[in-house]
Amino acid sequence: MTNTKQKILNSAINLFNKKGLVNVRLQHIADESNISVGNLAYHYCSKKAIIQAIDKELGNELELLLSIDQNFPSLIDFDNHLTRYFFILNQYSFYFLDLLEMKRAYPKIHTKRLAYLEKMILQIEEWIRLNSDKDIIKPEKSDKQYFRTAESIWLIITFWLTQRQVRDKKHHELNESYEFKKFIWNHLIPLLTKSGWMEFEALILPQLQQKFYLDESLYLDFRKFI
Amino acid sequence: MTNTKQKILNSAINLFNKKGLVNVRLQHIADESNISVGNLAYHYCSKKAIIQAIDKELGNELELLLSIDQNFPSLIDFDNHLTRYFFILNQYSFYFLDLLEMKRAYPKIHTKRLAYLEKMILQIEEWIRLNSDKDIIKPEKSDKQYFRTAESIWLIITFWLTQRQVRDKKHHELNESYEFKKFIWNHLIPLLTKSGWMEFEALILPQLQQKFYLDESLYLDFRKFI
Repeated sequence: MTNTKQKILNSAINLFNKKGLVNVRLQHIADESNISVGNLAYHYCSKKAIIQAIDKELGNELELLLSIDQNFPSLIDFDNHLTRYFFILNQYSFYFLDLLEMKRAYPKIHTKRLAYLEKMILQIEEWIRLNSDKDIIKPEKSDKQYFRTAESIWLIITFWLTQRQVRDKKHHELNESYEFKKFIWNHLIPLLTKSGWMEFEALILPQLQQKFYLDESLYLDFRKFI
Repeated sequence: MTNTKQKILNSAINLFNKKGLVNVRLQHIADESNISVGNLAYHYCSKKAIIQAIDKELGNELELLLSIDQNFPSLIDFDNHLTRYFFILNQYSFYFLDLLEMKRAYPKIHTKRLAYLEKMILQIEEWIRLNSDKDIIKPEKSDKQYFRTAESIWLIITFWLTQRQVRDKKHHELNESYEFKKFIWNHLIPLLTKSGWMEFEALILPQLQQKFYLDESLYLDFRKFI
């Protein structure tokens, strides 16, 4: 991808995140990219073309997360996985805040995305089942328990930003990622066996309780990823 | 409230639910109510006035649900409570599907609603705590566990319809209310003590597993409430 094309996409993502999908026109994106609308149209003929290109980027990121299902067996790997989801949420926040608008306006993109979504739920269920086999998570107590838990975790990830906006909680803040992860772990904690809880207490809990704002260098490091 | 006023509100709710808040004009509401726009304007001078009136109705329903916090101590009461939330979700679906649009377009209504929302979370937390005292729910394992669980349940209730639409699952179906309740109970099951689980197995589980579509009369009965 050329520099100009990438610059256009970045500008578009910024504007969509700030103003919402419906409120951004090609002219705004051209202004934000410091190019003429004519030049913009040379690279992308419509807003839809830009959204398709962004969707492809987002799809690549999700593909990456969904392909490593065999590579995050332990609790700390899952925690890192959540961190990655949090970055994606913030990077493409407009997408998650406007899911139904996306479905209405760009049904084909949405249909493509549905496959990822169901794969994401199955990946989480698979992870729970793997850890149940390893005596880290308690055996399934009721019909479809693991599947429903995976669906809940997907729901929390997907609507995290929306609920924070509804409740007037700040986002894009450093501690937000800890809030996000604590919220999801809270769902899993009651499912942990004794040895699961020991692993959680040793490896995840101290990490979740860190107050990163005390350490400026870590803070800056973190910003790079958002 | 006069018959005409109530008729107008019902028409507006129907249209908002069908087409989404932004896509409905006064003319549509007048047509749906079989009255002239002039007559409509005599009762409600603007779309905002109609939305305020609907919001008041919804507020009254929520107030009722939030006021009985002392009256749903046992598990089955909570289950009934969830049924009522499910009815409200479907009756005012546009409101829950368009939460951020509501916040953007009618910030004052949203601010008023925020108080209910936080009260709802606290009510659920209170209920968990009460059942913990009664040895129905396990003691709190980690900091803020009950509060976060209450937040999760609120999140599932609030975004239930949205996630179903995103995932192309049908709603407004009878079995949906069972799907909804199973989803929320799934969150609570791992928190149940031995006696909590016995109560759940005896009173809630059989009820959740009913196949109501086999019984036409119950089905019709249910429709009255939606």
